[in-house]
Amino acid sequence: MKKNEVIVLKFGGSSVANPGKIKYVAKRVKAFVDLGYKPVVIVSAPGDTTDDLIKEAAGISANPHAREMDMLLATGEQKTIALLAMALWEMGQKVVSFTGAQMEIITDGNYGVARIKSVSSVKLVEALKKGYVAVVAGFQGISIKGEITTLGRGGSDLTAIAIASVLNARCKIFTDVEGIFTANPKVYAKAKKIDIISYDEMLEMASAGAGVMQARAVELAKNKNVPFEVACTFSRKRGTVVCGEDKLLEKLVVRSVTEDRNQAKINVSGVPDRPGIAADIFEALSDKNICVDMIIQSSAKSSPGSPVAVNDISFTVKRSELASARKILESVRKKMQIMDIMIKENIAKVSIVGSGMKTHSGVASRLFRVLAKNKINIEMISTSEIKISCVIDGKNTARAVKAIAGEFKL
Amino acid sequence: MKKNEVIVLKFGGSSVANPGKIKYVAKRVKAFVDLGYKPVVIVSAPGDTTDDLIKEAAGISANPHAREMDMLLATGEQKTIALLAMALWEMGQKVVSFTGAQMEIITDGNYGVARIKSVSSVKLVEALKKGYVAVVAGFQGISIKGEITTLGRGGSDLTAIAIASVLNARCKIFTDVEGIFTANPKVYAKAKKIDIISYDEMLEMASAGAGVMQARAVELAKNKNVPFEVACTFSRKRGTVVCGEDKLLEKLVVRSVTEDRNQAKINVSGVPDRPGIAADIFEALSDKNICVDMIIQSSAKSSPGSPVAVNDISFTVKRSELASARKILESVRKKMQIMDIMIKENIAKVSIVGSGMKTHSGVASRLFRVLAKNKINIEMISTSEIKISCVIDGKNTARAVKAIAGEFKL
Repeated sequence: MKKNEVIVLKFGGSSVANPGKIKYVAKRVKAFVDLGYKPVVIVSAPGDTTDDLIKEAAGISANPHAREMDMLLATGEQKTIALLAMALWEMGQKVVSFTGAQMEIITDGNYGVARIKSVSSVKLVEALKKGYVAVVAGFQGISIKGEITTLGRGGSDLTAIAIASVLNARCKIFTDVEGIFTANPKVYAKAKKIDIISYDEMLEMASAGAGVMQARAVELAKNKNVPFEVACTFSRKRGTVVCGEDKLLEKLVVRSVTEDRNQAKINVSGVPDRPGIAADIFEALSDKNICVDMIIQSSAKSSPGSPVAVNDISFTVKRSELASARKILESVRKKMQIMDIMIKENIAKVSIVGSGMKTHSGVASRLFRVLAKNKINIEMISTSEIKISCVIDGKNTARAVKAIAGEFKL
Repeated sequence: MKKNEVIVLKFGGSSVANPGKIKYVAKRVKAFVDLGYKPVVIVSAPGDTTDDLIKEAAGISANPHAREMDMLLATGEQKTIALLAMALWEMGQKVVSFTGAQMEIITDGNYGVARIKSVSSVKLVEALKKGYVAVVAGFQGISIKGEITTLGRGGSDLTAIAIASVLNARCKIFTDVEGIFTANPKVYAKAKKIDIISYDEMLEMASAGAGVMQARAVELAKNKNVPFEVACTFSRKRGTVVCGEDKLLEKLVVRSVTEDRNQAKINVSGVPDRPGIAADIFEALSDKNICVDMIIQSSAKSSPGSPVAVNDISFTVKRSELASARKILESVRKKMQIMDIMIKENIAKVSIVGSGMKTHSGVASRLFRVLAKNKINIEMISTSEIKISCVIDGKNTARAVKAIAGEFKL
């Protein structure tokens, strides 16, 4: 490090869940000061605060007004910045806290899902110059009209990357895991921590269910080229550095295996084979904000009971959205001439991710072979340049992860 | 009322303590809209939120940083405005909430005890014109530098009066009592609600222990001549109107009797009778922010053990500040040659207030006589133009209040 180097440190909700943990975080921040760094600290709302506030709002209104929801949720991080600043003062460290509004984190004004348009560094630079630690509320910003807006789940990561980008500073994302692993250590005991990984690999892992960080934050880091380290708040071990692919010394064919147990499969069968039918179905779902992940459409076939050729479409949704998805499909069933809707709730998606996959062939067949050898049936497959995902029966998840991790020596 | 009349409604913390009460307040606000009013609603933090936040801060720091304390406390009202606005939207009422910062309630920047310097009505007027109800966070403002500052205990009353003044609007302060009473109804069952009372009487009653409203708010109302009504959130009865003395039809000699059980008496005896000794003692106390209420100094007398004449000084402090006061006095005891410090914890102050007292003689002697008849010893006396207070033994409080109320037919 350089003397007086600015460093952005982000601590998530579980790291600041109670006064004891906040004091601990203050000690970690102070340790960076003692090493000669100038820290800018981004924090989330304490522990379950955001969920508790959402519950409180639900007790008032079935469909809380979006502007007022952001007004409500923004109190969570404001609480944390005040308490963390108090803890640092208590240690004799000069510190100043900033809400999103005070920091002039300007957003596009879309309540609940705002995008950051600009971040002013004026107050930060001034505070750091005077020897203050700056503590900034994550997850929140303000529109040009002065409206409080939040950035969506995991938005504090986004705040941290945006500020690191503006300050051209190093960034550490502290969380409750020690970094990114080659597999879920709870499932595969021999899983290893990854030292360095590319933005793209991290992105594919996030969408594949390894929920360490908000995908939008990783995207922003990639776009602005802000390398960052994911490390554990309560450990001094090195974490995982996430950076541009050009900085990776070796591109591993398979970097990790991830599992996502939070999926459900819907099969819509016997829909007439006419142009636009898939668009109709998925529009009905997206109109109600249901995210569809994998989609497979089998080729049209003629059906004994129907004069026209019909299609089978299978897709996956988040398990928490299954009930709403089903309701929507039932409501359009008649209009769209859907013959049958089948649901399979207990499925899982296992994926392998690796940037070397682009230039290596035979990875997919190795994956399918190892699953077959273990008598695990593949229900759906999807692939990207650096990822292969398979949907399997949920009861086989752990076995599949272990077998894949063993096969690719993760 | 005039059609489209703007009205300022203030609801205290106990009125918005939980979702059920917030919904009830929303209904009351909506009822004003339905009557043709344009309400501006000021709210406090829900229930015990402020105390809970103070406790949380105490868990982090023994002496929390003042700026960060305000940052923390300001989240309380922000929560209420969001939830109340949600409740009004749920009823189909257009509504917009404002933090102190958004409303541009500009303060002098003194954390914890800020004074309002100006209130902008721009956003309010705009919102009301469009048919929105405005919900404003009480208790908080922002300095010219953009720092979040709070107005001190009961500061939401101050916000309400300041906004009513700027809008030249009627003002209703909703609380958990039905108005101002001639005596504490819990002590004196025959106590009557007062229909109309002057600012000065209300001020004397506030300082005499009838803690319905923040005294600074009543002072502001007096200075700006903003009449207001104190009424009960959970009742439809008329409350008590507080206004200028000129608007009172009759000036009652004794309007009410109040009691304050939250006092303790300190007697400092044997201090040398030299100029400045009282100043020395009370400076030592005020340096540590101990408020002294009544002070009595007996005339100097020569003491058998001392070559110089000595003084006895008695004074009262809040019971919660007694321990600190005692510590301070013990620490200066030697330097100031104090012979003895005596404490009496269980005392009470009973007061009678009435603007007619100015022009009527014999009120004091009637008060002393009724206490004497009831064998209640008076330990200290203090008077103002419209108030007489007596300190008595705490065990006699209820008897004293009843006797006085009976004597003056309250």
